[in-house]
Amino acid sequence: MEIGVFKLGMASPADVSELQELIAGGGLDPAQVVAVIGKTEGNGGANDFTRALATKCFAEVLASARGQTPEEVQEQVAFVWSGGTEGVLSPHATVFTRSAGEAGKTGGRLALGLAMSPDLAPEEIGRMAHVEAVHQATLQALADAGISDPADVHYVQVKGPLLTPARISEAAARGAEVVTQDPNGSKPYARGAMALGVALALGEVGDADVSEAAIASRLDLFSSVASTSAGGELTKCEVLLFGNSPDAAGAFRIGHAILSDALDADAVRAAIADAGGVPEAVFAKAEASATLRGRRTTMLSDADINYERHARAAVGGVIASVTGDPAIFLSGGTEHQCPPGAAPIAVIAKVE
Amino acid sequence: MEIGVFKLGMASPADVSELQELIAGGGLDPAQVVAVIGKTEGNGGANDFTRALATKCFAEVLASARGQTPEEVQEQVAFVWSGGTEGVLSPHATVFTRSAGEAGKTGGRLALGLAMSPDLAPEEIGRMAHVEAVHQATLQALADAGISDPADVHYVQVKGPLLTPARISEAAARGAEVVTQDPNGSKPYARGAMALGVALALGEVGDADVSEAAIASRLDLFSSVASTSAGGELTKCEVLLFGNSPDAAGAFRIGHAILSDALDADAVRAAIADAGGVPEAVFAKAEASATLRGRRTTMLSDADINYERHARAAVGGVIASVTGDPAIFLSGGTEHQCPPGAAPIAVIAKVE
Amino acid sequence: MEIGVFKLGMASPADVSELQELIAGGGLDPAQVVAVIGKTEGNGGANDFTRALATKCFAEVLASARGQTPEEVQEQVAFVWSGGTEGVLSPHATVFTRSAGEAGKTGGRLALGLAMSPDLAPEEIGRMAHVEAVHQATLQALADAGISDPADVHYVQVKGPLLTPARISEAAARGAEVVTQDPNGSKPYARGAMALGVALALGEVGDADVSEAAIASRLDLFSSVASTSAGGELTKCEVLLFGNSPDAAGAFRIGHAILSDALDADAVRAAIADAGGVPEAVFAKAEASATLRGRRTTMLSDADINYERHARAAVGGVIASVTGDPAIFLSGGTEHQCPPGAAPIAVIAKVE
Amino acid sequence: MEIGVFKLGMASPADVSELQELIAGGGLDPAQVVAVIGKTEGNGGANDFTRALATKCFAEVLASARGQTPEEVQEQVAFVWSGGTEGVLSPHATVFTRSAGEAGKTGGRLALGLAMSPDLAPEEIGRMAHVEAVHQATLQALADAGISDPADVHYVQVKGPLLTPARISEAAARGAEVVTQDPNGSKPYARGAMALGVALALGEVGDADVSEAAIASRLDLFSSVASTSAGGELTKCEVLLFGNSPDAAGAFRIGHAILSDALDADAVRAAIADAGGVPEAVFAKAEASATLRGRRTTMLSDADINYERHARAAVGGVIASVTGDPAIFLSGGTEHQCPPGAAPIAVIAKVE
Repeated sequence: MEIGVFKLGMASPADVSELQELIAGGGLDPAQVVAVIGKTEGNGGANDFTRALATKCFAEVLASARGQTPEEVQEQVAFVWSGGTEGVLSPHATVFTRSAGEAGKTGGRLALGLAMSPDLAPEEIGRMAHVEAVHQATLQALADAGISDPADVHYVQVKGPLLTPARISEAAARGAEVVTQDPNGSKPYARGAMALGVALALGEVGDADVSEAAIASRLDLFSSVASTSAGGELTKCEVLLFGNSPDAAGAFRIGHAILSDALDADAVRAAIADAGGVPEAVFAKAEASATLRGRRTTMLSDADINYERHARAAVGGVIASVTGDPAIFLSGGTEHQCPPGAAPIAVIAKVE
Repeated sequence: MEIGVFKLGMASPADVSELQELIAGGGLDPAQVVAVIGKTEGNGGANDFTRALATKCFAEVLASARGQTPEEVQEQVAFVWSGGTEGVLSPHATVFTRSAGEAGKTGGRLALGLAMSPDLAPEEIGRMAHVEAVHQATLQALADAGISDPADVHYVQVKGPLLTPARISEAAARGAEVVTQDPNGSKPYARGAMALGVALALGEVGDADVSEAAIASRLDLFSSVASTSAGGELTKCEVLLFGNSPDAAGAFRIGHAILSDALDADAVRAAIADAGGVPEAVFAKAEASATLRGRRTTMLSDADINYERHARAAVGGVIASVTGDPAIFLSGGTEHQCPPGAAPIAVIAKVE
Repeated sequence: MEIGVFKLGMASPADVSELQELIAGGGLDPAQVVAVIGKTEGNGGANDFTRALATKCFAEVLASARGQTPEEVQEQVAFVWSGGTEGVLSPHATVFTRSAGEAGKTGGRLALGLAMSPDLAPEEIGRMAHVEAVHQATLQALADAGISDPADVHYVQVKGPLLTPARISEAAARGAEVVTQDPNGSKPYARGAMALGVALALGEVGDADVSEAAIASRLDLFSSVASTSAGGELTKCEVLLFGNSPDAAGAFRIGHAILSDALDADAVRAAIADAGGVPEAVFAKAEASATLRGRRTTMLSDADINYERHARAAVGGVIASVTGDPAIFLSGGTEHQCPPGAAPIAVIAKVE
Repeated sequence: MEIGVFKLGMASPADVSELQELIAGGGLDPAQVVAVIGKTEGNGGANDFTRALATKCFAEVLASARGQTPEEVQEQVAFVWSGGTEGVLSPHATVFTRSAGEAGKTGGRLALGLAMSPDLAPEEIGRMAHVEAVHQATLQALADAGISDPADVHYVQVKGPLLTPARISEAAARGAEVVTQDPNGSKPYARGAMALGVALALGEVGDADVSEAAIASRLDLFSSVASTSAGGELTKCEVLLFGNSPDAAGAFRIGHAILSDALDADAVRAAIADAGGVPEAVFAKAEASATLRGRRTTMLSDADINYERHARAAVGGVIASVTGDPAIFLSGGTEHQCPPGAAPIAVIAKVE
């Protein structure tokens, strides 16, 4: 297996010009594209439609280039967009290709496995059914990546559904009870459930610990490599599992670290060192907190700007000040994705 | 002269408990207080009233401790608040005392001079009258600090009026024309005029270059040490000039540097090194830009969050990741306060 | 008893000029002031400090005029501010005086009773202790107003504490559990508990129905005349009970109605008719809803603007289009203050 | 000519289900669709991409039903979306069909003419070239509608380009100067230029009065029936001219009125009466103002919520309280579209 990594700037959520140029110039084989992970410039909340627009536009370009319909592309390519480019963060997309490669090099190279869960009903969102859907999909993705040792896994990106007003109404009409009536408030449950699914699959937590009541509550249970996001445009969970495999070829390796708090620039350097090359793409989480190194912050009491936006803006500055590149995939909400207060970071680096 | 520097946390814009404790414990002589510079947790816009609330509360405590009225305190003590604690930024106040000190030590110690301009009419705001008011006040502050060489000046904090709806109406009623009808839009003119006043006083620009048309427009004209803010609660300009003087005693020194862009963590380290000690208080500006290191940002096109808030959130993260302390005085708008795209930073460090 | 009603415009949360002029001109006897109810131009959220600023400024003016300290004024005068002047809403204060009046006129005149609860601990906020505190205070206010028949009560304004980050931390330090960790999320619990307290006092609900679990949940339980608000600056509950009493004199009467939804202009007219005169002051609630007359609204899914702000902006327009005066006391959140989806409105009218 | 009017609810900017059902059920002939005017739930600012998403989705459905490409549909059908559904406003689309109809009925029936201008360069936006482009397109639309007397015109909807960061950069790279560097600040110039173009075409202003300096400045020059919007997704101006024509058949008539201020519910009733039937679709503008009926509003000084959003939220409530339907096409900015402080409103009513 050989994984290609292409980071593309976007002038708007509908801008596909860099993708079109790459395909036209022969630099990227559209038939090999398996995933797109990117940031769009919406508000990142339940009413952020920039993700849907970007998916639509990227799928159309790939459909045209692959001789498929956009619907077929969306079945075969995982699109993971996170809304919210606060502070210095720059809208962009990282396109991943997968092809048969030669035997791997010393120390392994970047491998990528993908899987999707079945559709989830509104009343399953943020609950054990959500955990289990991701648990199973992560096991499939692990096999798909050709990775046998969970220690070789550095980053598991999962995106799945949250509750929208329409879904809440639809469930109510059927007499089904959802985990919360608040669309924006459903995000912690959704993200938490998906992270616990990854943790189960990688053996980071035990079956006995994980229950409905634990979701978004028992934060001592976590995966160190999961990164989960929830969006209103999804009905199923997409799992993208990244690791290094001795069987993989190519120019890239991946590493990870834990940001102990929002100011932990050393962890950014550690993740780069763990990958062992020049950073090409960074994937991290930003966590809001009421206090930081003994000082009070106002993220959690601000009624004007959502706390996730405060956190992304600050952590984006910290990471970019180390890497020099504000095109970072940084999303909010770390429930069960690291120890409480901390946040995961993964770096794909060019090693040739 | 000996300058004392006391950084106090604030649980709200009305929280004066740390000041009260310091005074009660004898750690701070209220009669020696000459200035308070702080961040409050409002939105930083024209409708941010947290600055007025903080001034009122701090002035009351000092009035009670000094046996004065709050009005007398406000005439004798400079209050400089900047609203907006985005991202990790922490609401706080740095209280400065000034007392007769012994002869200075090698290399000089922190000196502070203060001056206030007369009241400005609405139609003078953001115009040459505003420039001249600060020009003269800076010269007075230089003398008050006992500094003769402009090269010893590291930070000139100026706060003055902007246009409020009430002022715009009042001017219109008199037939006077203001620089803009947009309250929030008056900030660049006000900040720019004040920075050019500092630059004139320190010889950084020449009289011939500065004109009404140059304000907020000819950005090649700037001061390297000015930091200016505009708020609706002020009618006059307050100048606080900080430098090192061989005649000053005390535990502190000041240094400065220029952040070449929002990600310039090295400049933070340079400012600390220039001060030559352990950082105690940081004063910086954050500047929004449409592109950063070749990547597009969305600060300037976002209709939900003001660009100054985006910029402060990101730069606050960058600075705090170096110093470890999110209680930073960071304000927005760098018109004429550094080369275009850059931003000033000053650090007061403990050197004993 | 004779109640005076004075509506004052405010150019900012600190603007007391109209109050000063009234006192100076002899139009208002400061010693007779018992309550101030007003709107300030903050965001209405947990980090809205305009209410604290307005209280401080009004209390200072009254203190000076009454020969008291501001603290004494705050003990004797009820200050009820609601933040958030969205849309056309205009910042203002309605000052109420109470004096011994002659025997009342046919049909009764406006009467006002006041009471305050003891301080509430953070863990009591939004719980049965909060309900009970308001229950008892409402009974005291009823007696204070000289009203014996609950049917003569038209408006019971209650303002009490919500959870702030500081209170949540303080409770956690003591091992006490609060109703929610989310400061803004504590408002429904606080408002709901206070409304149920009023409903108990006026016999609108029975003791058997009201329990901890019912708060912000069993919305079929409600008072038709309660209007409750929660703010971070309060530690106790203030009850202002308004009704018509045959024993009261003066120029004003009060009436009320129920807005069946956000567009119910007829209910505004009904409340004016119920009062029976020219509207002088309007007190109402605005309720967000996901659908309205068969159409979807976006208030509840918007991550940029809080749903209370959407609702106040729209309902403020509706009411002011009937009365012609945008200085309306309109606040958000109707939990237990009317049937679900509806909202209370009270009108004080001049009847002479 | 016969004009069909179909108002469709939208569960998201991508929701085309009601259109699909209408077409599938035979209620609407897709080949006859000439225009879509709707509201989407973005922020209405320069970074609102919900308009682009809705256009894409509606064009795809029509393309599939008409046997065309989406690009061909966009050339033949005018899409006019306004972002921002504040307060009670409901996301929706009004689809217009045009077909050959029988001879008209007494008093005339709804007629619709369309025209598009050529592309505008960034430096032409908000300037005389922008005025002239709309002037010519309006004349074409008048002819297309078969209306000879400008007095029969009741509503001219124009949507055209504003300045985006990309366009500003592109112009700067060519050395071309744009009207303002502020993307959101370019909206008044763009809207004003387009309204003056309409006013020229309908003889409401004279050639001699209209100049570059007059745009967004000489507000005594205006059209009484223009309604203009600016969006980053457009490069040309689309003109939709609505009036009543004795030659038109069908079930609809149009009327208009002027809202003298944001609270003018009587003007809503007047517009309905002018149309003479049951209101089917309402098209209006909302204007922010610093004062209203002698009271101060905070729309213009609020740094958290854009003044257009405040105004739309309030006026949306006022209009819907009269019509009972919150699915109103209400957009911001009335420059040159009515007397200063006022706002236009047009109503299409069913008269059979």
